[in-house]
Amino acid sequence: MTHPLDDADPLAALRDRFVGVSSQLVYLDGNSLGRPLTVTSDRLRRFVDEEWGGRLIRGWDEGWFDLPLSLGDDLGRVCLGASAGQVAVGDSTTVLLYKLMRTAVAARPGRTEIVIDRDNFPTDRYLAMGVAAECGLTVRWIDVDTAAGVTVEQVAAEVGEQTALVALSHVSYRSAWIADVAAITAVAHDAGALVLWDLCHSAGSVPAELDAWGVDLAAGCTYKYLNGGPGSPAFCYVAERHLDAFAQPIQGWMGNTDPFLMGPDYVPVAGIRRFLSGTPAVVGMLAIQDMVALIEQAGIDAVRKKSEQLTAYAVELAAEQLAPHGVTLASPRDPERRGGHVTLRHPRMQEVVRALWERDVLPDYRDPGGLRIGLSPLSTSFEELERGFGEIRSALDELA
Amino acid sequence: MTHPLDDADPLAALRDRFVGVSSQLVYLDGNSLGRPLTVTSDRLRRFVDEEWGGRLIRGWDEGWFDLPLSLGDDLGRVCLGASAGQVAVGDSTTVLLYKLMRTAVAARPGRTEIVIDRDNFPTDRYLAMGVAAECGLTVRWIDVDTAAGVTVEQVAAEVGEQTALVALSHVSYRSAWIADVAAITAVAHDAGALVLWDLCHSAGSVPAELDAWGVDLAAGCTYKYLNGGPGSPAFCYVAERHLDAFAQPIQGWMGNTDPFLMGPDYVPVAGIRRFLSGTPAVVGMLAIQDMVALIEQAGIDAVRKKSEQLTAYAVELAAEQLAPHGVTLASPRDPERRGGHVTLRHPRMQEVVRALWERDVLPDYRDPGGLRIGLSPLSTSFEELERGFGEIRSALDELA
Repeated sequence: MTHPLDDADPLAALRDRFVGVSSQLVYLDGNSLGRPLTVTSDRLRRFVDEEWGGRLIRGWDEGWFDLPLSLGDDLGRVCLGASAGQVAVGDSTTVLLYKLMRTAVAARPGRTEIVIDRDNFPTDRYLAMGVAAECGLTVRWIDVDTAAGVTVEQVAAEVGEQTALVALSHVSYRSAWIADVAAITAVAHDAGALVLWDLCHSAGSVPAELDAWGVDLAAGCTYKYLNGGPGSPAFCYVAERHLDAFAQPIQGWMGNTDPFLMGPDYVPVAGIRRFLSGTPAVVGMLAIQDMVALIEQAGIDAVRKKSEQLTAYAVELAAEQLAPHGVTLASPRDPERRGGHVTLRHPRMQEVVRALWERDVLPDYRDPGGLRIGLSPLSTSFEELERGFGEIRSALDELA
Repeated sequence: MTHPLDDADPLAALRDRFVGVSSQLVYLDGNSLGRPLTVTSDRLRRFVDEEWGGRLIRGWDEGWFDLPLSLGDDLGRVCLGASAGQVAVGDSTTVLLYKLMRTAVAARPGRTEIVIDRDNFPTDRYLAMGVAAECGLTVRWIDVDTAAGVTVEQVAAEVGEQTALVALSHVSYRSAWIADVAAITAVAHDAGALVLWDLCHSAGSVPAELDAWGVDLAAGCTYKYLNGGPGSPAFCYVAERHLDAFAQPIQGWMGNTDPFLMGPDYVPVAGIRRFLSGTPAVVGMLAIQDMVALIEQAGIDAVRKKSEQLTAYAVELAAEQLAPHGVTLASPRDPERRGGHVTLRHPRMQEVVRALWERDVLPDYRDPGGLRIGLSPLSTSFEELERGFGEIRSALDELA
């Protein structure tokens, strides 16, 4: 099947790089878990049989030890607007966010509050509450419109000399709202606070300019738009200007100066490596490398452009085909403020999503009443998206 | 080549299950990184192309979400003497040790000391210092013989009503000393303290009986004798009697009650799952499963028996062939107190190890002057070990 928007898409040919795209399944959840690249299984096979199996322990000297930082540099350059030496890959997003929150609180002694919004991703909120409790701070909550997100004005109204840290998401997991990172960061800095940005829903889809925006700290996952596979390691960014002064609490051997000396003292190693703790998860990092290379080949701006076209088409199809069923848009209408997914609301949407899964159409569901359509720019076609909307409409028609 | 000890080894045939064993390379570092199983690359390929690529996000409901606990149960049953519901797989050893140390300190409020030995693995020591500092405790150090390890008497002399936690290794990373876990745990309990055991150098090689020994907390890695691959996820054990009361500080969505409700509050879920934080590292857990199954097939007691024979043979060859060069044993002579590796000392051993690597003989080096021979019971043959000793002797002969 062809679709005029696919015919006009300069990235259309890259879709064949992914496993499973020729099946009739409609995958609309790339913002939960990206598809594997077709080269991934062969890369893993070669790694097991040749690198791990053949080089054995020597592999640590031949690239594995450096992989968290070399892959971090690649990711920073291609997707994050971060120059080398500021990004490390490892741990889970949750563990990295914990480290960064603790780091920020320690770097702003005497300040008593962490500012976060009530619609931030659960793990971010739970961590903020936990870190605040253990460090004797309190959480100041920003209430937000769940179909939009945090504005500069809202942050400006909450930050002050009591604020240690502002913790927000670049792209909202629920609505796809793109926060104005540069302006919010500046407002927080004016108050003397640090800012931690969660990039889980932007990395690999919505370009970041962490250096240019003056960001202090950021973290994100690699299993959505970076196609690292279920539970692949996360990444963190710490601005170079902070690296000498900042240290994190999980002080393991891999963050120490000369880890193989195994000496008596922990002295955080220079640079972003001090944010590592345990042995790097090499196997988990393998798939990410090829996706970062593919995004570099396509160009992150071209990826973003296709992402905008995909979400715009979803918004258009929703207005045409689903609005008559009472479906409303719970994502920003302005494409400049809308990330890589689109959320559509209906009171009975949970039933709809269940029915869709039964016919191999896979979006996901997020309260309240949200069908969330995640559009992986390089592996989703316009034809696939249109077909998915046909099925959503049928499922709505069939509601008893 | 045949060797009478291999001919008599009931587990000899299992060696062919591992990648690379037919090469002439002598691998004596299985206690740093175990060889891959030959089934591992195919398991990874199938996972990528069929499970991840084919089931996509549905995989979470079809086993991935439960994998940290189901694999933990298998590991507990086969290797750790732990009944179901007490072991979880995830994070790095360092991160899990951090969680468990913080948990223990919180569970013993008012107590002021963490007891640890100066020869414990670096990450354990750095974490103890860090956790003590952040929680207002101090570290009490046990001095130990680096060719042996911590004794019951030493622990008894240091613990008291001020002790919150005793943190020790089951098998010493340097000497292979096997601590008397049951007796030391009892002594610590008599003082009202908790005990955290690091199982990195025992899991999969030296059987543990965590339930029977009354252990409170344990953690270990899976890339040594559990052959999970470089940086594969770690595991933790929390005794069932503590699970309701204990909670850990990195409170992420995966440790919350009903994570997909994404509600406002963090309420640790019942059971060992509360020790999880972020999204489980599914890809990293795949290889471990086959190794645990293979150990179950062989039987952990048979694995231990072969391990004892391998280390005994190494001790014998060292006495015969290397003692004349001034090499001394820096591991326990008593096989009951000796884990899966043997450390041999010589003032110029670092040069020797360098020369051995150049001829594809791979032990590792640990200060002071220690050549460490790691013997993977299922993938090391007696013939390989004997050949390795021939090369060690040659390297010593050739010292200028």
